[in-house]
Amino acid sequence: MSLKPSVIVDLKMNPESVRDALQTVFHGREVINLADDTATPHAVSDAAYAVVWKPSADLFQRATGLKVVFSGGAGVDHVLKLPGLPDAPLVRFVDPTLTTRMSEWVVMQCLMHLRQHATYQAQARQREWNERAQPEAREVTVGVMGLGVLGQDAARKLQIMGFKVIGWSRTRKSIDTMDTYDQSGLDVFLARTDILVGLLPLTAETTDIFDGSLFAKLNQSGPLGGPVFINGGRGGSQVERDIVSALDNGTLKGASLDVFEQEPLPRDSVLWGYDQVYITPHAAAASDVHALFRHVSRQIDRFENGLPLEHVVDRNNGY
Amino acid sequence: MSLKPSVIVDLKMNPESVRDALQTVFHGREVINLADDTATPHAVSDAAYAVVWKPSADLFQRATGLKVVFSGGAGVDHVLKLPGLPDAPLVRFVDPTLTTRMSEWVVMQCLMHLRQHATYQAQARQREWNERAQPEAREVTVGVMGLGVLGQDAARKLQIMGFKVIGWSRTRKSIDTMDTYDQSGLDVFLARTDILVGLLPLTAETTDIFDGSLFAKLNQSGPLGGPVFINGGRGGSQVERDIVSALDNGTLKGASLDVFEQEPLPRDSVLWGYDQVYITPHAAAASDVHALFRHVSRQIDRFENGLPLEHVVDRNNGY
Repeated sequence: MSLKPSVIVDLKMNPESVRDALQTVFHGREVINLADDTATPHAVSDAAYAVVWKPSADLFQRATGLKVVFSGGAGVDHVLKLPGLPDAPLVRFVDPTLTTRMSEWVVMQCLMHLRQHATYQAQARQREWNERAQPEAREVTVGVMGLGVLGQDAARKLQIMGFKVIGWSRTRKSIDTMDTYDQSGLDVFLARTDILVGLLPLTAETTDIFDGSLFAKLNQSGPLGGPVFINGGRGGSQVERDIVSALDNGTLKGASLDVFEQEPLPRDSVLWGYDQVYITPHAAAASDVHALFRHVSRQIDRFENGLPLEHVVDRNNGY
Repeated sequence: MSLKPSVIVDLKMNPESVRDALQTVFHGREVINLADDTATPHAVSDAAYAVVWKPSADLFQRATGLKVVFSGGAGVDHVLKLPGLPDAPLVRFVDPTLTTRMSEWVVMQCLMHLRQHATYQAQARQREWNERAQPEAREVTVGVMGLGVLGQDAARKLQIMGFKVIGWSRTRKSIDTMDTYDQSGLDVFLARTDILVGLLPLTAETTDIFDGSLFAKLNQSGPLGGPVFINGGRGGSQVERDIVSALDNGTLKGASLDVFEQEPLPRDSVLWGYDQVYITPHAAAASDVHALFRHVSRQIDRFENGLPLEHVVDRNNGY
């Protein structure tokens, strides 16, 4: 029996979910799930495809026959820095599920800051009934940094909820319904922004971009009593000691963080302790593993039928 | 100098905001702000218009010359039960501000229940990093009871965020994009509903409608691990002892309440104590008093120019 080329799965995700989802995909080909630890060196070196999320450091030294590498998430920084990454196409995970979930998280965070959720929760714990003055969404400008699929979807939904939205990207994107800026317009963009939403890929240019000097350029006289920083992108883009200083000295009023310099966020991080900081454990847009495998299967079909792969990463840009 | 007919203002709202907003409206007519307590009986009995929110019990016995009564909010139940209400048109406050704010609150509450915000907050207080299984919005059905201006706007925005949305109203409304039900379809509507959103006016028919027998008919096998009840309408529509029982016995997984049988919610209410119950102090869609006075001025202009008033309450229906 001649099997189709085999697939390595190396996903640092919930192992039961991965095993479950593998029941229903990749028919007619061998699947080497590295979480099961039964793979022979020979099988690994023979595999043509790998689906990876934070893979083993030596994966690409062992899997030497890869024709396509699939990232298990929208980001690929976890793959690009591994030694021995083959010169094969690297495909990002783009899926309506991922997009919808990120927008759920971003819109929820913006609304919680707008509607003073933490303050009302603190009052409720004291059984205190006290209505607070409340700006309207249309008085608040959300600045979205990163205008890829995720950024544009979040921006559109924030507009529908009533927020004023402006956008920033490395190379300027022209979008009918909002003012957009590129590198040269960063300071103007920041000066207009009351809530900053980061949805940037991690590249050399975006590493440590969210630092104290950037926070100081945000609109300090907006209707929320101070700017808010929301990061759903990558922890490597933020300087956490600067976030802490900015919260302490009032340069930032609040924050919502799903990603961190080090994950899991260490138990001794002071970020856990702020009432006005919402923390989620890199859960804003968890990849649905069923959707991931459907996407990979579809791309493998295209590849084996001579069609171009979709969502291939440009390694010069890093996304 | 012949002044235009005068206006009584009797608004149990923030007195400074009311006084501020009065600076810029009703030019050319006397304004009797009952919060200032300087009105002569004669001036009150002469006034042609009254703008009221939870007015003094004896207002209509003193203000016997009213030609139009304006409610300071979307609801009019606080006016309808007062003695001596004249047989003059009663006008509700309908304003984009009010609608946008209610939808902000409803969408935020639905997202917080979907995204398990209370659980993540409890984990964060313990400095615990733990990603939880997460249904998608499209797996969750939000049932909106009340399909007026507020209900339809909230429903549309919930759909854009990805939720499945169905609607219920006393008389069936046909809406292209969602399944709708009326009284005869209530049980079917409830059986499909994972998150119940109440945006009903308070009438004889809706008093105590949200009780234990209704909660028991909600979908008990949905993806959230139990139904959620959200009330942005009127406290008189809910039976709070039944909400508590339902939370205790698992018939309800959580709730978001902006309105209560008695407001302020008494400090000894057990509702304050639930992690999965979000409480706001009747602040979901606070009327912007500037917008309220703009609306009243516009309607007075229409009235004095012989045009029909808008948003007049049908007293038989109570809304």
